[in-house]
Amino acid sequence: MAAANSSSRLGLVERSVRDRVPPLLTDMYQFTMAYAYWRTGRHQEPAVFELFFRDCPFGGGFSVFAGLTDCLLFLRGFRYTDQDVDFLRSVMPPSTDPSFFQFLRGLDCSGVTLRSVPEGSVVFARVPLMEVAGPLAVVQLLETSLLCLVNYASLVCSNAARFRLAAGPRRKLLEMGLRRAQGPDGGLSASRYSYIGGFDLTSNVQAGFLFGIPVAGTMAHSYVTSFTSLEEAWPQTLVPLNGDDGVPVDFISLTKGWLSRVCALVGAEPGKIREGELAAFLSYAVAYPQNFLPVIDSYSVACSGLLNFCAVALALCELGYKPVGIRLDSGDLCRQSVDVRRVFRLCSEHFSVPGFESLVIVGTNNISEQSVTELNKKENEINTVGVGTHLVTCTKQPSLGCVYKLVEVRGRPRMKISEDPEKSTIPGRKAVYRLVDSEGRPFLDLLCLVAEPPPEAGRPLTCFPLGCDDASVSITPTQVVCLRQEVFIKGQVTQPLENPAETRAKVQSSLQDLNPQHKRLQEPESYTVALSETLHKLFTDIQRGNTGNNNNFLLLLDQ
Amino acid sequence: MAAANSSSRLGLVERSVRDRVPPLLTDMYQFTMAYAYWRTGRHQEPAVFELFFRDCPFGGGFSVFAGLTDCLLFLRGFRYTDQDVDFLRSVMPPSTDPSFFQFLRGLDCSGVTLRSVPEGSVVFARVPLMEVAGPLAVVQLLETSLLCLVNYASLVCSNAARFRLAAGPRRKLLEMGLRRAQGPDGGLSASRYSYIGGFDLTSNVQAGFLFGIPVAGTMAHSYVTSFTSLEEAWPQTLVPLNGDDGVPVDFISLTKGWLSRVCALVGAEPGKIREGELAAFLSYAVAYPQNFLPVIDSYSVACSGLLNFCAVALALCELGYKPVGIRLDSGDLCRQSVDVRRVFRLCSEHFSVPGFESLVIVGTNNISEQSVTELNKKENEINTVGVGTHLVTCTKQPSLGCVYKLVEVRGRPRMKISEDPEKSTIPGRKAVYRLVDSEGRPFLDLLCLVAEPPPEAGRPLTCFPLGCDDASVSITPTQVVCLRQEVFIKGQVTQPLENPAETRAKVQSSLQDLNPQHKRLQEPESYTVALSETLHKLFTDIQRGNTGNNNNFLLLLDQ
Repeated sequence: MAAANSSSRLGLVERSVRDRVPPLLTDMYQFTMAYAYWRTGRHQEPAVFELFFRDCPFGGGFSVFAGLTDCLLFLRGFRYTDQDVDFLRSVMPPSTDPSFFQFLRGLDCSGVTLRSVPEGSVVFARVPLMEVAGPLAVVQLLETSLLCLVNYASLVCSNAARFRLAAGPRRKLLEMGLRRAQGPDGGLSASRYSYIGGFDLTSNVQAGFLFGIPVAGTMAHSYVTSFTSLEEAWPQTLVPLNGDDGVPVDFISLTKGWLSRVCALVGAEPGKIREGELAAFLSYAVAYPQNFLPVIDSYSVACSGLLNFCAVALALCELGYKPVGIRLDSGDLCRQSVDVRRVFRLCSEHFSVPGFESLVIVGTNNISEQSVTELNKKENEINTVGVGTHLVTCTKQPSLGCVYKLVEVRGRPRMKISEDPEKSTIPGRKAVYRLVDSEGRPFLDLLCLVAEPPPEAGRPLTCFPLGCDDASVSITPTQVVCLRQEVFIKGQVTQPLENPAETRAKVQSSLQDLNPQHKRLQEPESYTVALSETLHKLFTDIQRGNTGNNNNFLLLLDQ
Repeated sequence: MAAANSSSRLGLVERSVRDRVPPLLTDMYQFTMAYAYWRTGRHQEPAVFELFFRDCPFGGGFSVFAGLTDCLLFLRGFRYTDQDVDFLRSVMPPSTDPSFFQFLRGLDCSGVTLRSVPEGSVVFARVPLMEVAGPLAVVQLLETSLLCLVNYASLVCSNAARFRLAAGPRRKLLEMGLRRAQGPDGGLSASRYSYIGGFDLTSNVQAGFLFGIPVAGTMAHSYVTSFTSLEEAWPQTLVPLNGDDGVPVDFISLTKGWLSRVCALVGAEPGKIREGELAAFLSYAVAYPQNFLPVIDSYSVACSGLLNFCAVALALCELGYKPVGIRLDSGDLCRQSVDVRRVFRLCSEHFSVPGFESLVIVGTNNISEQSVTELNKKENEINTVGVGTHLVTCTKQPSLGCVYKLVEVRGRPRMKISEDPEKSTIPGRKAVYRLVDSEGRPFLDLLCLVAEPPPEAGRPLTCFPLGCDDASVSITPTQVVCLRQEVFIKGQVTQPLENPAETRAKVQSSLQDLNPQHKRLQEPESYTVALSETLHKLFTDIQRGNTGNNNNFLLLLDQ
C-alpha cells in the first residue's frame, strides 16, 4: 500500500498538524495575557495548567481520551514565524512594547513538559487528563490549540465507542460522515477518531491515506440513475473466472435469463423492473466482478432493485465470481433486510448457489446510536452499518466542553473560586491514580497532590468523592495504576507515537476492563472520582480563605 | 495591517483550500463509480448535478448560502498527484484497469461549468443552489468535496444570521468557539462563516490573519488567578496620558485610594476583596491602559471583581486614560449587568467621571440563540455578547444535510424515484428565478427547465408549489431575478472572488429584503418554492413512468 509504512505516514501527519494548527490558530486573549505577563516580568514563572472536562458526554458514564498524538506534534513544532509576529503587531494595541514581539519570535516549547493519560484510555469527568507545565506565558499560549485538538477528538471517539457498544462486536461499522462534518478537516478528524473509537471502515479516502484506515464504498444512487437502457452497459461480455478457454460470455443475455428465473421464483412482475438500474448493475459488475455491492433502493427494492441484483449476482456466480452484497439507503432497513435475506436464501436453495444466503447487507439511512441499539431488539439481517451525520456531528451533544485551568504558579496552588460551584477548580499539581478492585476492574480515580505518597495496593485509604459534599469513604485497592505519563519533556516527545490501529486496540481493551454498570449507554452508574485527604483539605482551606498560599484577601487598605 | 490586502489574502486562502481539501478528501465510492463509468465508456458524457438541501435549518424559514469561494478555489486547483494516484491504486480492487489511473492523473476541471446562487444569499429548501455541469466521471468525483465545503459553511452562516436577528442590529456579537469546534479547521470555518453571517468580531487570530475579520479578546480567569499579591503587580507606576512632565505616578497607591472610596460609595466590605485579582487588574491596566477590559467574576463580582475594576478604572481615568469595560462569564448575566451598570453610574455621578456610566459590558457564558433572544425581553445592560459552543457546533441542528443529485445526462433528464417521496429528486437542467412582489420583497422561487422562456415581470403565470401535492397557483411577479450566475466556466473562475466583508454585507442586505414572516426565528411562514408547469409535467410524467426519456421499465424479458 502506498504511504503504508508508519514512519512516512507520521511525517505526513506531522506536516498536516503544522498546516492545520498554525500557532495563530488561537484566541486573541492568549496574546494579550502573554504580553501582560511579560510586561510584569512573570512570563518565565513556572506554571501548571490542567486539561479536563466537567461531565461525561451523551449522558453516559465514561469518555475516551483522544487527540494526544496531534498535541505532541503541535508542541514539537510550536514556533511563530516572522509573518505571524508581523500580523500580531498589527492587531495588538499600539502601546505594546516592540520587544515583546522579539520575545514571541524566539518562543518554543523547550521549557514545556506534558504529563498525559495515554491516548485511547477510558476517562472520567473532572480527572485532569493532561498536565502542561512550563513558563507561565508559554503554557498560557498553548491553551486554545490543545483544547481544540482534544475536545472534538475525544468527543467523536467517545461517540464512536458508544456506537460500537451499541452494535456489539460482530456487526461492521462504516463511518461515512465527511460531507456532513464541520468542513474538510472536521471530516478528516471525524474519520480518524471514529476509527480509533471502534469503527472498522471509513468512506474517506484521505483518512485512509494519512492514517491507514481501511476504506470502503461502491456506488451512489447517481450511478444507478445515470443509466437509462441496456445499450449503455458495456462491455456486454465477461470472461468467466478460471475459465479454461478465456472466451467471453454474453453477460447481458446470461443476466436476463437469471432475471426471468428470479422473477418466477419470487413471483415478481417483470414489467416493473427498471432497465436503467439493471444496466447500472451490469456495468458495475463487469467493472468489478469480485466487488459487486450495489445500492438497490433507487427505485423500488422489492419490485426492481433486489431482482436486478439477484439476476446479476447469480450470473456472476455462474461465471465463478463472488458477489459481495447490497446496500439499503431508505425506508425501514430492518424489515427490508429480512425480506432481502429471505430472497437470498430462496435463491441459494432453489438455484443451489452456496454462499448466496450469506451475502452482505449494508444499511445506511440516517443511522443514530438509537437505531443501532434497536438492531439488537428488532429482527434484521444487517451485517454492516454505515453512519454519517449522527456520528460526526455528535448530534446528542456536539461539544465535550474540555477546559484548561491554572492550578499552580511558582510552586503555589492556584484556584478559581467561582460563585458558580461547577466552575470552581481543584488547586495544586496532582498525581492521578486509577484504583482497581479484586476482579481487575477500575472502581475509583484518585486525585492526590503530587508531593503525597502514592496509594498502595492492599492498604486502606480515606478519600473524598467529588459531588458528595464533604463525605469521605474508606476503600482498599487491589491494584494501583498511575494514570498519567510524561510524554513530552522540555521540548522532546519521550514516547513512541502510536498509530491509529494501536490506539484503537487500546480503546477496546480499556473499555473491556470497565465495569458494565459504567458502560451502560442509558443511565449508567457514575464512576467515582475522589480527592485524597490532603488535596481535599487544600481545596476546602483555599475555598474558605484559610490559607495564605492562595487568593489572599486584601487586608490592607492603607489609604 | 500585515497580510492586509485582499489579493495576498486570497493567495493564502487558496493555499489553505489546497492543503485542507486535497482531492483524496472524498468518499471512496466516487472512485469506484468513476472507474465503472470509465470502463463502460460513459465517463465523458455531459452530465449535470444539483446541490440543494431539503429543509431549512433550525426550524427556521430560510438559510444563508455560503462556501462558494472555497468551492471555486477547489475547482480551480483540482488535480490528482502521482502520490494520490499511487494510493488509489493500492486501495481500489486489484482488477482495476491500470489505464484508469493514467486517466485520473490527467483529470482537471477544464470541462466543468458551475452555476451558483451568489454567496451570502438567503436561500430556501429544495432550490438547487449550485449546478455542476461537465463530464460525468469528473462531476461525480467532485460531489463530496463540494458538499463538504458548502454544508457546514451554510449551516454556521445561517446560525450566525439567526443570532444576529435575535440580537438586533445594535448589540455587538463576538464569536469565540475555536476550542469547541470540530478540530482546528472546523474552528477556522466557524469563525469565517459566523462573521459572514453577521457577527462583528472573532477571538480567532488565524481567522483575522486569513480573512481580515476583526479580532478581540483581553483575559481569561487564569490570568486573574495567577496573581496572589500586589507584589506581583509590576511596574507599579504609570505615566499619565498627556501629562506635561512624563513623571510616573505610583499607580498602586492611586488605585488603593480609589478602592477605599468605591467601597465607601457602594457600602462594600473591603475585607472581602481579593488581593490577587486586584494585582491582576493593576498589571493588565499598566500593560494596556487604553484597553482595560478584565473578566470580573473569578471570585465574586459584587464583593471583589467589580470593586477592583472600578478602582483601577477610576485610577486610569484620573491619569487621562479611557478604560473599556468588563466581562461577565458566569451566573445570571442580565441581573449582574444591571448591578454593574448601577455601580458604573454611581461612580460616574459621584466622582464626576463622564463616560464611566457607559463602559462596555461583555457577557459570555454558554450563550445560545435563546439566551440572546431573552436579552430583548429581560432588563439587562449587556453591550457585547460572546458566543462559542452553540454557535460553532450548531447545537439546535448540527448538520444542514445538503445533497448533490444527478439531474441530466447527455441532455436527458434523470431522476431518483425513491419509495421515500422525501428522497425523490426533481429532474432536468433548470433555471431558477426569484419572484419579487410590488413591495420589493421576494415571495416565490420558481424552478423552470432551462429551455423554457423566463417568467416576465407583470405577466401572470401558473406554477406548482412544492409540498402542495398537485395544486397550482397563479401569480404575477412585479420583478423577476435570475437567481444563479455562471461563476466557473470550463476551468476558469469568471467573477471576482469576494472578500468576507463584502459577502457579510450581502447577507444583511439579502435578509433585509426578506419578508419578516419568513425571518421569524420560531414558527416562520414557509417561503414558497414552485415548479413551472413544464417542469411539473416532466416530474409527474417520469414519476408515473409516462416518458420514454427516463428510467424505462425493462419491457423485454426475451429469455
